[in-house]
Amino acid sequence: MADFTVTPWEVSGAVDYSKLIKQFGTSRIDAQLKECISRAVKGHHHMLNRDFFFSHRDLDLILKDHETGKGFFLYTGRGPSKGMHIGHLVPLLFTKWLQKKFGVNLYIEITDDEKFLFRREYDWKEVQKNADDNIAEIAALGFDPERTFIFKDSEYVKNVYPLLLKTARKITGSTVKSVFGFDDSTNIGMNFYPAYQVVPSFFEKKRCLIPCAIDQDPYWRIQRDIAEGLGYYKTAAVHCKFFPPLQGISGKMSSSAGSETAILLTDDEKTVKNKINKYAFSGGRASVEEHRKLGGDPAIDVPYQWLSILFEPDDDALKKIHEDYRSGKLLSGELKLMLIERLNLFLKEHRECKAKAGKDIQKMMYSGKLAKEMWERTYE
Amino acid sequence: MADFTVTPWEVSGAVDYSKLIKQFGTSRIDAQLKECISRAVKGHHHMLNRDFFFSHRDLDLILKDHETGKGFFLYTGRGPSKGMHIGHLVPLLFTKWLQKKFGVNLYIEITDDEKFLFRREYDWKEVQKNADDNIAEIAALGFDPERTFIFKDSEYVKNVYPLLLKTARKITGSTVKSVFGFDDSTNIGMNFYPAYQVVPSFFEKKRCLIPCAIDQDPYWRIQRDIAEGLGYYKTAAVHCKFFPPLQGISGKMSSSAGSETAILLTDDEKTVKNKINKYAFSGGRASVEEHRKLGGDPAIDVPYQWLSILFEPDDDALKKIHEDYRSGKLLSGELKLMLIERLNLFLKEHRECKAKAGKDIQKMMYSGKLAKEMWERTYE
Repeated sequence: MADFTVTPWEVSGAVDYSKLIKQFGTSRIDAQLKECISRAVKGHHHMLNRDFFFSHRDLDLILKDHETGKGFFLYTGRGPSKGMHIGHLVPLLFTKWLQKKFGVNLYIEITDDEKFLFRREYDWKEVQKNADDNIAEIAALGFDPERTFIFKDSEYVKNVYPLLLKTARKITGSTVKSVFGFDDSTNIGMNFYPAYQVVPSFFEKKRCLIPCAIDQDPYWRIQRDIAEGLGYYKTAAVHCKFFPPLQGISGKMSSSAGSETAILLTDDEKTVKNKINKYAFSGGRASVEEHRKLGGDPAIDVPYQWLSILFEPDDDALKKIHEDYRSGKLLSGELKLMLIERLNLFLKEHRECKAKAGKDIQKMMYSGKLAKEMWERTYE
Repeated sequence: MADFTVTPWEVSGAVDYSKLIKQFGTSRIDAQLKECISRAVKGHHHMLNRDFFFSHRDLDLILKDHETGKGFFLYTGRGPSKGMHIGHLVPLLFTKWLQKKFGVNLYIEITDDEKFLFRREYDWKEVQKNADDNIAEIAALGFDPERTFIFKDSEYVKNVYPLLLKTARKITGSTVKSVFGFDDSTNIGMNFYPAYQVVPSFFEKKRCLIPCAIDQDPYWRIQRDIAEGLGYYKTAAVHCKFFPPLQGISGKMSSSAGSETAILLTDDEKTVKNKINKYAFSGGRASVEEHRKLGGDPAIDVPYQWLSILFEPDDDALKKIHEDYRSGKLLSGELKLMLIERLNLFLKEHRECKAKAGKDIQKMMYSGKLAKEMWERTYE
């Protein structure tokens, strides 16, 4: 028995990311590769610098394709859920940065079919409501509306059906059993679904780069096994770690695990404050005196980790927080307050963007340059 | 080991239809049921009278629904192939008769996805070409263009996708394994496909009647297991025997088995004449003298059987042929000539209808009353 489990539907235990790289057969993003990226984009991203994006497949080839002018495209996705939480934003925000820096097309698959197939308690209307809400959250992040295509699987299925069949024809039952742990009691829709998650990686005859959490990698293993046989590139990927839940730095933030483990994008200021104060696991000491004397431990402190991943991109500022917390100068309550302020500011701006996103949603789904092209296209 | 095999993809051996009724758990169409049908439609059909349609599920309930004014609808389909042969027309012609007599809606599913998934040697363009050709052949038969909806799975998929997923969610891998003999080497598209063949039986909230060859029944067994759980009726079906190939009365006519076993709808007069004279298995005697003396055997004579199934609907006329052949008065060559003439007349008229079918195709696929309604509808 492994002491942790990582599949697209379950993350549990204390994940050992080095083991995972070996287990999945991916590569670590090392210092050299980070430098290549920085050189290519003339800039940095804290999620890379801080190893939150830590693993990849063929990212070096993506950079080469960029250099030679061949180009590449981005693809990511979302299984629509009732409420999106801040953890869901991590790969999306990194994707946004990549799109901006490289000026490439981006495809965002909303897998309403997957959610419906894997969650028998959902009815279709509920899934659609969640999908529409999630699309608005995503659009609010500010992707390039002329170069981004957001599509629901159920809406775009006609345009991809022949390619979907072609992909499915290459994948056997035993493959999805061994890759995803399916068995004979798995419904035939779930068995089929992986083909649809592979398809967008074939949207252009260029290399595809998929920013995602590492649990999605099993799909890309299948993609890489069949892509060349179908006349496409093996996809590249950059993998991030799991965004820690409020209760501690192991596991993965999940809305379905109960709202007290996550900050939802819809949480108001008071809720955020209460949740952080009440639930955020602290690396601080039992008393102020002890904390002043011994200092806190940022490595296991959820507020510190969240600042590091999302809310404090400035390296010097983060370093100061680290030092002050370690030394005992910064108290746990003060650190929490810092996070609460950043979080509430972020959520306030996000909500404003969401409220104004209508036009961009329309563009990214139907009327923008890329979206329009996509609706006119059929993939065979 | 059974001495014959019947699956949707293979028919071999000398099929024992009584055994098949037991094996599949269907019911025989008995004299009483035939009478009920005749009473309901004020007419007869020779395919019923002569037990070519021999088995059913819930046909009695269909008649009851008709009587009480609840009504029902018809559904049949076609896996598009390179050339349609006369055997393919049998269920379609019977369906046409049912539609006319009962005045009901008819859905014809063109399973381009199935063909593509099950036949790796096909490319998509080829399947589409075959599908369009087959649709023209079907439309030429003269269904009611306002009450018939012919659709390709690939074209209509968006409209049914939620219902397709709902159906797939109810079917496990072990079900399709046991019903169709799939295994872990089966591709995930084939595994999924049965859900799509079930879906049209849910197109109306009425009972569905499916005229088809008996080899398609496994799909309806699955349908009947899940229909009520999804809020629909268990489908009814009427099953026909297999149209015998030229070489003998066992097995099933197949275009892929080689063109000398089948009469294609595109065969010209000379080809028909040559094929019948050269290949049609005869129940006649070795010499004219012997034939005059001992008589032929209509039961194993392919030309006689074809007349019985398709080309001589008049009972008295068929009886006379039977008697004359049995007595030796009618020679094998004369019987063949009779068939050749009927066949060529039929094919000539069919080709004329096909040439003029353009407007009806348009109506049945897109612009007729039923088709228009169907394109405006999404099934959830």
